[in-house]
Amino acid sequence: MSRRVVREDWRRVLKLTPVEEAVEKLLKAIDLKPRIEEVGVVDGLGRVLAEDVVANQDIPPYDCACFEGYAIRSRDTRGATKSSPVKLKVLGKILPDTRELPVVREGCAVLLVTGAPMPPGADTIVKVEEVKLEGDHVIVFREVGELENVALRGEDVKAGEVILKAGHVIRPVDIGLLMELGYPKIKVYARPKFAIFSVGRELYLKSLERRGPPPNNYAYVIKALTEELGGSADVLGILPDEVEVVKEGLLKAIDRYDAVITMGSCSIGINDAVPDAVNELGVSTMVHGLTLSPGKPAGFAVLRGKPIIMLPGHIVSAVAAFYVLCLPLLAHMTGRSVDKILPHVYAKLAVDEETLGAHRFLRAMVEEVDGELIAKPMHGGSNVISTLLKSNYFTILPPNTVVKRGERLKFTALSLSSITPR
Amino acid sequence: MSRRVVREDWRRVLKLTPVEEAVEKLLKAIDLKPRIEEVGVVDGLGRVLAEDVVANQDIPPYDCACFEGYAIRSRDTRGATKSSPVKLKVLGKILPDTRELPVVREGCAVLLVTGAPMPPGADTIVKVEEVKLEGDHVIVFREVGELENVALRGEDVKAGEVILKAGHVIRPVDIGLLMELGYPKIKVYARPKFAIFSVGRELYLKSLERRGPPPNNYAYVIKALTEELGGSADVLGILPDEVEVVKEGLLKAIDRYDAVITMGSCSIGINDAVPDAVNELGVSTMVHGLTLSPGKPAGFAVLRGKPIIMLPGHIVSAVAAFYVLCLPLLAHMTGRSVDKILPHVYAKLAVDEETLGAHRFLRAMVEEVDGELIAKPMHGGSNVISTLLKSNYFTILPPNTVVKRGERLKFTALSLSSITPR
Repeated sequence: MSRRVVREDWRRVLKLTPVEEAVEKLLKAIDLKPRIEEVGVVDGLGRVLAEDVVANQDIPPYDCACFEGYAIRSRDTRGATKSSPVKLKVLGKILPDTRELPVVREGCAVLLVTGAPMPPGADTIVKVEEVKLEGDHVIVFREVGELENVALRGEDVKAGEVILKAGHVIRPVDIGLLMELGYPKIKVYARPKFAIFSVGRELYLKSLERRGPPPNNYAYVIKALTEELGGSADVLGILPDEVEVVKEGLLKAIDRYDAVITMGSCSIGINDAVPDAVNELGVSTMVHGLTLSPGKPAGFAVLRGKPIIMLPGHIVSAVAAFYVLCLPLLAHMTGRSVDKILPHVYAKLAVDEETLGAHRFLRAMVEEVDGELIAKPMHGGSNVISTLLKSNYFTILPPNTVVKRGERLKFTALSLSSITPR
Repeated sequence: MSRRVVREDWRRVLKLTPVEEAVEKLLKAIDLKPRIEEVGVVDGLGRVLAEDVVANQDIPPYDCACFEGYAIRSRDTRGATKSSPVKLKVLGKILPDTRELPVVREGCAVLLVTGAPMPPGADTIVKVEEVKLEGDHVIVFREVGELENVALRGEDVKAGEVILKAGHVIRPVDIGLLMELGYPKIKVYARPKFAIFSVGRELYLKSLERRGPPPNNYAYVIKALTEELGGSADVLGILPDEVEVVKEGLLKAIDRYDAVITMGSCSIGINDAVPDAVNELGVSTMVHGLTLSPGKPAGFAVLRGKPIIMLPGHIVSAVAAFYVLCLPLLAHMTGRSVDKILPHVYAKLAVDEETLGAHRFLRAMVEEVDGELIAKPMHGGSNVISTLLKSNYFTILPPNTVVKRGERLKFTALSLSSITPR
């Protein structure tokens, strides 16, 4: 019976694939390309640029006044001191929108408000607060050097300069600059769209009975993580652990989303339906089992070029497998490398740690102690949510590794909202 | 003429207030309290908790199976080895929703799926993958210790325990836990509401003429910063630098917002209308001028218990003054201390720096070089947006300070989207 063989092969026994190999296989097997969309610059905060942005003009567009002051010829102030100032005739005033600029000749000055263009003849500006006015003359009490308080055309940004690169995450200041350059819209990577199913008899029954928040609460953890990291996710509800129902759910979702995530029912238990369901759909590539602790029962399959990611039901395992499998997907679809998505720190381990045959998802509370970052690992089972609650960073230790107290390790933030110290 | 005196006093001359003193004055003079609102837990990502959250139940709610396996009596396995296993009779199966639990007596076992409650009599669980089935018997090949693969009631979270504290920023995992505990809603601090006006003749005229993005682009930088840091901000447009118009704008906005921010027209120039306008409104406290470079012309006033923050028009000055004046406001209204809003790092200065009589807003590119953070300061005028563009962190150096290349300084992220290394 082919069904038996399938269960034997894919489900009853986990074939552990090394973490790095699994990710490589996943990215190779999928047929997903980053999608690009246009958004208004003012709505661009936090989005990932899909193209280099080139300055289309100089900033400032012409030589202009950095501060309000008098445009003069620096050589006219030669020898000026507090006790022996020079007196220059004020010809008029220039606003930023003044079209006809007077020529500043010997012994003359023109008042410029901030941002006003430099008039011909002048080579410097003396600030209003440094001078004294006497009728239509201005008194200058010191030698003024060339180009004081003058912003030269293009000194800030030069036309043709690449100011932001593809893959850059738009910050507040970028919005200001993009608007300054007159760009109403920018090309960004579309957010990868994930669907999330929770699978399991217990959850399914609870969802039928219970009031209050839905019992698939861990799906909302994965949704929030996905969204923080630049994706979008729809929680599609709870499926009972029945192979046919799971197949139907996956088939419905696979064409509408970039990836489908299942949570739970993916281990080798008697009711674990997902690996069977996935396998029966005729998927091209399949990995069931990772050298990851916790997270061992995780896996993925590729259907119609799109990934079905099987996350375990235990929350710590689910999150661990999310970082291993979903983070590279998010990176791939938003033109970034995996390590550019979540910030990292280097922190000293507070205790010794060691791993056996598998990679270990080590979660830790990283805290600043006397200006130094110390990582306190949080130990506990794959179902112990409080170990995540009390952690803010994680690292994945390779198999058969001993790390000693005081060793400096690279830790990645569990989420953008976990970043410390602050 | 009182007008003259006003201009003399408030506007024509900046009375520089030390940065710390200005912030103290601001927080003392305002009559703003944090507002609390309820949001659905699933919408809580990134919001700031306004109350301690206490667990209302144990997690797990009863002793249960961490993994699928057989609930047995550990002493029944005494002496068991691979060559001399013990054989236990399987009484049945327990699912998470099974109500009547069979008693596990000597020589017996009961199959438990993950999460199923421990039956009376049993004190440990042996995983399915470790045993062999033979008819209605299970063969165990090793001594099983007490409480293997058992999660004890309350071992994860205890009822009555404070699991999250007021001031905590909700992370993905918190959503999962709050739902697990059955909380549909949580109390969070309402986002402080800022209004932003840009003021200036140049911008006003441009806004009348020009197509494309509006010329008050820097207002959108302040808006995005505010929103990233937990506030909300409405850009209310551009006012010409006319005292009466500015007064009217401020009066219209002050009752609808927690704070009104003006950008530009607040220095000592001939057309700088904001300090006059603010002063004529009969404000209670007023600071015009900070010991901050750039950012010197910034200030604030308090009208009807609410702050009017005057930011300079130059982008670097505006941003510097935002961190000095608006960050404490955001912190105050969301129950956090200022240094808990933006993450910081310690980085080694790449060059010597020194300050004169004022605080210096030093922006820098912090980068990881061989696992070490190096801060390269970006120098340039208060109007040079590219210095912000090329920076990701800042520090505010005190007056009359010399810091040497290689010194380790605390730098704060310019925005959440600027956090490095990643």
